[in-house]
Amino acid sequence: MGRRLVPTRMPERMTAERAALDALLDEVLLAHVGLSLPEGPLVIPTGFARDGDRLLFHGSTGSRWMRALADGADVCVTVTALDAITVARSAFESGMRYRSACLFGRCAALSGDDAVRALDVFTDRVLPGRSTEVRRSTAKELAATLVLALPISEWSLRSADGFPDDPPEDRAADAWAGVVPLQATWGEPEPSPDLRPGIDVPASVRALTSTS
Amino acid sequence: MGRRLVPTRMPERMTAERAALDALLDEVLLAHVGLSLPEGPLVIPTGFARDGDRLLFHGSTGSRWMRALADGADVCVTVTALDAITVARSAFESGMRYRSACLFGRCAALSGDDAVRALDVFTDRVLPGRSTEVRRSTAKELAATLVLALPISEWSLRSADGFPDDPPEDRAADAWAGVVPLQATWGEPEPSPDLRPGIDVPASVRALTSTS
Repeated sequence: MGRRLVPTRMPERMTAERAALDALLDEVLLAHVGLSLPEGPLVIPTGFARDGDRLLFHGSTGSRWMRALADGADVCVTVTALDAITVARSAFESGMRYRSACLFGRCAALSGDDAVRALDVFTDRVLPGRSTEVRRSTAKELAATLVLALPISEWSLRSADGFPDDPPEDRAADAWAGVVPLQATWGEPEPSPDLRPGIDVPASVRALTSTS
Repeated sequence: MGRRLVPTRMPERMTAERAALDALLDEVLLAHVGLSLPEGPLVIPTGFARDGDRLLFHGSTGSRWMRALADGADVCVTVTALDAITVARSAFESGMRYRSACLFGRCAALSGDDAVRALDVFTDRVLPGRSTEVRRSTAKELAATLVLALPISEWSLRSADGFPDDPPEDRAADAWAGVVPLQATWGEPEPSPDLRPGIDVPASVRALTSTS
């Protein structure tokens, strides 16, 4: 555990369980990737996919921050789910239910079959089976794509999932306390304006909205 | 515009409109705050509130990253909304609809009435009117709380809101394309297990769920 991970407060919010980390990484679609550039910190949102013991990223070979990662820049990748607001009897005790993971390390660029397979993992992450519904990527597309992997080795997971913890004097007052859950749900698929007539919504997309 | 903000690709995704920035900052509840620590980059999720031309943060005086910000550390604050996935006719053209803002600068710690007012802005940001429903913060609570403000001056806003942009040869194929929207909705309020009987859900919480 690197120095960045040492909890200075609320150690009860730290989880060391790898299964809880994986569950969060497999649920949340966006990561926030932090870099220390010479001119200061930079935080970029990006899609990602967990592939066993590594996180996969992809982007354009023209992307500056992707190139910095490919060159071995030190990175912090943070993945956060906001689950609810907690409404305490005072402003001070109010807050949020959340789960948040920070992963630290350096990425490696993938190439050849490993990169091609990683892109399929990426595609199937949001829409399982989608990689078998679309054509294969062309050599030109692959050449324009940078695929990176970050080993899941140095990480921390912090979460809050309870109800407000008001002191006795507040609990005695006539004030409400509780939580309000926040849920992300998929809406109805909207076809592209240029979709040719007679083409149905594919199975992968149907499965997404039928389970949400 | 600092060097971090210069778009190296897809400049059409950049928006310079302050109203679009404010709309995003007023909608999304979590920011990801990036710092360059001596041991590497760190990205922390946190609640925030926009107060005119500044972003407000608050946390414990015992929080290491809050103290670093109070000490004037260079910061990148990123606020992202994921609006949809875009399903193209190829994996390569598939992606996401999103809006993401990066704000750069240094925070200042607030004190006295300015800090008290900032905490009310924070409380009312998620639940308008909540600050008038709860007791005032105690001197002890205020002493344990660090309130920071980041001026909204150096920022960039990037977004993608269209449909997949497939090349003609893919549009001619029998493949579906479109978008699937992702929506965040509030669930039903759940009272705390230790709530005394006969206390109703307050107006601020009712308003939240009746408009979602």
